Amino acid sequence: MPSEFELIRRYFTRPARTAALGVGDDCALVKTPTGLVVAVTTDMLVEGTHFFPGADARRLGHKSLAVNLSDLAAMGADPRWFLLALALPDADEAWLAAFAEGMFALADAHAIELVGGDTTRGPRTICITAIGSLPPGYALRRDTATEGEELWLSGSTGDAALGLAHASGRVALAADAVRHCLARLETPEPRVALGQKLRGLAGAAIDVSDGLLADLGHVVEQSKVGAEVDYEALPRSAALRSCADRALADECLLAGGDDYELLFTAPAARRAEVEAAGAAAGVAVTRIGRVVGGAPGAKLLGADRKPIDVARRGFDHFSGGGAA
Amino acid sequence: MPSEFELIRRYFTRPARTAALGVGDDCALVKTPTGLVVAVTTDMLVEGTHFFPGADARRLGHKSLAVNLSDLAAMGADPRWFLLALALPDADEAWLAAFAEGMFALADAHAIELVGGDTTRGPRTICITAIGSLPPGYALRRDTATEGEELWLSGSTGDAALGLAHASGRVALAADAVRHCLARLETPEPRVALGQKLRGLAGAAIDVSDGLLADLGHVVEQSKVGAEVDYEALPRSAALRSCADRALADECLLAGGDDYELLFTAPAARRAEVEAAGAAAGVAVTRIGRVVGGAPGAKLLGADRKPIDVARRGFDHFSGGGAA
Repeated sequence: MPSEFELIRRYFTRPARTAALGVGDDCALVKTPTGLVVAVTTDMLVEGTHFFPGADARRLGHKSLAVNLSDLAAMGADPRWFLLALALPDADEAWLAAFAEGMFALADAHAIELVGGDTTRGPRTICITAIGSLPPGYALRRDTATEGEELWLSGSTGDAALGLAHASGRVALAADAVRHCLARLETPEPRVALGQKLRGLAGAAIDVSDGLLADLGHVVEQSKVGAEVDYEALPRSAALRSCADRALADECLLAGGDDYELLFTAPAARRAEVEAAGAAAGVAVTRIGRVVGGAPGAKLLGADRKPIDVARRGFDHFSGGGAA
Repeated sequence: MPSEFELIRRYFTRPARTAALGVGDDCALVKTPTGLVVAVTTDMLVEGTHFFPGADARRLGHKSLAVNLSDLAAMGADPRWFLLALALPDADEAWLAAFAEGMFALADAHAIELVGGDTTRGPRTICITAIGSLPPGYALRRDTATEGEELWLSGSTGDAALGLAHASGRVALAADAVRHCLARLETPEPRVALGQKLRGLAGAAIDVSDGLLADLGHVVEQSKVGAEVDYEALPRSAALRSCADRALADECLLAGGDDYELLFTAPAARRAEVEAAGAAAGVAVTRIGRVVGGAPGAKLLGADRKPIDVARRGFDHFSGGGAA
């Protein structure tokens, strides 16, 4: 079956006309007649594909908005407004109240305002469209990584996927690790403040939602550069380090998805500024590799700088992905 | 079960903060820092609720965008950009190609550009978010109808619901009527040009998607006015007039839904301008009543000007609506 990315490309990608940046980045950018740049993004969460039947409504309200805020963060945009379309099998008031509570708590934290929506009967499905604004020329894009830049990652990857693996019975984690990983899976914190601080500083940026290597793949393809990732430099949470199944831990780290961290590039000369941006935004930032020349593609390097073979690919909804 | 409107009000309506107009009109209006007014709307179509399993993909592509363009039309906005979120049970390429063809044909006709989206696995669900722009102060709203204005309707209502009644076996129409009614149901033509021409002319406007009386109800409630509709003046297509089941024809006419016509008000002194706007937009416009004082509410008047009792209410997804 063709992958999600192939499908999008084949049927829904046309050259941008009035848009400054069309299909294929974290957000589309549209330039209004008065010169303001508006970033727009939409994400659909489906019961059974993105969350388990019976998932906690408050946390689901949080996550549904968080994944869209993460796309705005990856553009460096200021969150402004969002719309909510909701299909529900029944009008369960307790569910709605809890969902709204989780969603609005996160919305208020990021000063983004619900301005419209649609409610209908159907299999439980949540579609949020978020709108942000940007000064012209300051958007963080995927196609602007440059040879010689360093590769950075906020927070760490793998915890959400490890939480899912535990919930699915693939691994049995200790209680502390379960708590941490499920929180990362169910209530991700979008890196909005970091994205804003990277405006004018990062070369390229993307949010890690499909898995670290898969999302890096989008950057190198669209920027037409190579990239090297230092396996040993990758940040790992205590929970991930505690996982006895090392193959699973590596899979989560490199290809887990649902991380909602920012992966970005910056010139080596601006290392201190990147560190300061992370500190000001309250999130760790780690140098994990570099942008290189040559054919577009990403290599994972071991301690000896020898390439590690990575057969695994990122999460792809139409090529075998399940509930995440 | 609470109605869709009650649900939206209860859990998702908060006072507008930065938005010029929040939840509760055809579109939200947001004023960008540079002064431009942007109209945004989102609609979700679910298989089994809004369309039959196996529905023609090309026509579905058309309709999914048309219902959003109709919301922009009801604000008088210029269509600009849209986003598409799509859940599909499988990656059926023939379906995708046909869906894209129908959607893009309508998009091109209205110069609206697809700028982003999301594709995922799940029960067939289509969520489109459309964005339009407007000069400040010119939006057609629901809450601005004024006593003394006349009530107008574009085209006619009831055909889509009659087509659905035929498809469901509730009535057997002649071949010509079937063709006409199914076209109205499956490939509605959003009244974008009319909406644009009504800027600065109409007092209030709404698109008729939930049924004529239900949508008029939204206008009178939000404008805090009364309205009288002249039953005999209501435009009826030849197909509707040919329907032998008069009770069904009346139900479709008054409460059918899925019409995507514009219902609007205008000062009596500007009748000729309204007629000219309709002619320029290529759609019939008919005076169907008037805005009056008194408690908010709409009355249907017979030829003798005596009120006709209307027990039926508009289509409401959570109060018993089915596939439409």
